[in-house]
Amino acid sequence: MNTIRPGQTVGILGGGQLGRMLALAAAPLGLRTHVYCPDPDSPAFHVTNRATIAAYDDEASLEAFADSVDVVTYEFENVPAESAEILQRKVPVRPGPLALQTAQDRLAEKTFATAQGIATAPFAAVDGRIDFAAAIEACGLPAILKTRRLGYDGKGQRRIESEEDLGAAFEDLGEVPCILEAVVDFTRELSLLAARGRDGEVRAWPLIETRQLDHILDTAVAPAEVDAAVGEQALAIAETLLAGLDYVGVMAAELFLDSGDRLLMNEIAPRVHNSGHWTIEGSATSQFSQHIRAICGLSLGPVDQLGHCEMQNLLGDDIADWLALTKQAGVHVHHYGKTEIRPGRKMGHVTRIRRS
Amino acid sequence: MNTIRPGQTVGILGGGQLGRMLALAAAPLGLRTHVYCPDPDSPAFHVTNRATIAAYDDEASLEAFADSVDVVTYEFENVPAESAEILQRKVPVRPGPLALQTAQDRLAEKTFATAQGIATAPFAAVDGRIDFAAAIEACGLPAILKTRRLGYDGKGQRRIESEEDLGAAFEDLGEVPCILEAVVDFTRELSLLAARGRDGEVRAWPLIETRQLDHILDTAVAPAEVDAAVGEQALAIAETLLAGLDYVGVMAAELFLDSGDRLLMNEIAPRVHNSGHWTIEGSATSQFSQHIRAICGLSLGPVDQLGHCEMQNLLGDDIADWLALTKQAGVHVHHYGKTEIRPGRKMGHVTRIRRS
Repeated sequence: MNTIRPGQTVGILGGGQLGRMLALAAAPLGLRTHVYCPDPDSPAFHVTNRATIAAYDDEASLEAFADSVDVVTYEFENVPAESAEILQRKVPVRPGPLALQTAQDRLAEKTFATAQGIATAPFAAVDGRIDFAAAIEACGLPAILKTRRLGYDGKGQRRIESEEDLGAAFEDLGEVPCILEAVVDFTRELSLLAARGRDGEVRAWPLIETRQLDHILDTAVAPAEVDAAVGEQALAIAETLLAGLDYVGVMAAELFLDSGDRLLMNEIAPRVHNSGHWTIEGSATSQFSQHIRAICGLSLGPVDQLGHCEMQNLLGDDIADWLALTKQAGVHVHHYGKTEIRPGRKMGHVTRIRRS
Repeated sequence: MNTIRPGQTVGILGGGQLGRMLALAAAPLGLRTHVYCPDPDSPAFHVTNRATIAAYDDEASLEAFADSVDVVTYEFENVPAESAEILQRKVPVRPGPLALQTAQDRLAEKTFATAQGIATAPFAAVDGRIDFAAAIEACGLPAILKTRRLGYDGKGQRRIESEEDLGAAFEDLGEVPCILEAVVDFTRELSLLAARGRDGEVRAWPLIETRQLDHILDTAVAPAEVDAAVGEQALAIAETLLAGLDYVGVMAAELFLDSGDRLLMNEIAPRVHNSGHWTIEGSATSQFSQHIRAICGLSLGPVDQLGHCEMQNLLGDDIADWLALTKQAGVHVHHYGKTEIRPGRKMGHVTRIRRS
């Protein structure tokens, strides 16, 4: 097991705020970074001196990128499988192919979880018009039709109240492969954030409560107020998922807590996650630092929580408040350095800590 | 008072570990950075996408640098006065000229402190051979002869036991302007780390105990174990120095505590300081973040300490321990990404926190 050492280079696919915060976390370990992103305006480019501006399917650029780095990681799960393969021929890609393939496809994800004994909402594949009746029978109504790939923040989803709805929604989503999922009667949405090292060690942060507004994460609160037994369930799920995917790095699993205090897995993010931004100030090791440690073959850092934390996203025009927020004691302001403000765009976040 | 805003650029003179940690601290505020340093191997270059490799007296490069940034700061006090003037004609330089001129010259520094009512060891100018007897009479023996400019980490200093020693030392130091200082019978060396905002607000961290080995900082412990009255003395000194220098940014003052619990000022560093590295994990606001806030015209952040902190430098070959150190819980490892190891060179540091 080769350790990536100071002076070596971590390649990061994706130049958004997650890539930026990963690069910032790599520096204290003496690691260099190289960010690959098609958008010349990427905020992660500002915090490294090595950048490639190229499409994710540009083979020549991917080859040159792989030659220039010692390990590759990514800030989003929709890395094309072919691109990952090109990179893997030259350099380790972590988390590895199984995690990437599984997390890219909602059907593969839920099938995998179920096979590992992890509860999910009832679901069924909808690959074509002939699947409608069987899918509705499997899930019941109401249900949610989702594209199997490339959806995020509520995009590529339709609520289904009837078989007619299902037909219209399938057409509306472009008749691409979909998954129908039962609507879960949950009491809370939770995020399970955990890391696995190359040596197989798993460390999980306390469960995080996530609150969405218009399908976008608004607030994350850690630790979530749940019974100890729920925390134990979550740790068991983390260990199962991470070992089952032979995972290396930080992973987030979005979970529902149902009225019977049972956890149902919703989806996996094979990367650092918005729900874990509070760990920068609120944990002995941040999710970004932990991810870097894991993918470089270092031992995991401690995940002790340093207080009650609340992270709130600054979406779109919210960022106009940045100056007022810097004046509030106990508020840690993060501005991602994005130049263009768009409604709902993640422009920054704040973390408030009540130290314990 | 113009505030430097996200998207604007902080120019940093000096590309060592202090410049690197300043650049890393600027990023969460959405600020861009431009590092200016003659050494192409500078570790701060790795964490920014804007770099100038040029000499500190290269006028054309300084002009272009000034044109590309919104404020300039520096990681060392020996910025040539002419260079600072070139920059100041185009862009604010913070801390300002008075702080820079005073801290560059040991005689100006001690004269300034004395004029402000701050105690120092007895001292006298040694500008030529005619000053010897008067200087020894002012200081007593033993004493230390130091060059007025450009000394650091014990360089440019000689211990004086007699008038003959003084003659030999003055010659040995090249007969440049010097200062003779009485040897202080101190019980402890302390560092006073404080910041002043553009609005004049002063915030000081608790006193830090510094332990030197071979004239180089080995360990810093915060808070220093001193009586509350000593802490109050220190705060008064910080307020006097910062106001007297019309200072903006973080300043460190090296102090001696004498056997009568009196603080004597040794020297001023008009910048972030090695003795304050523990603030990255151990304070609600790090010295780097505070410096950036101050020079950008933002309000100062809280300086609550988060536990008992001990920072140890990794000098020269000490850095070989980095991997073992990453395995220790509660140890925060910082590797500066320098490629060449030299004896006594600051290669990294570790901070250990016992959380309160």
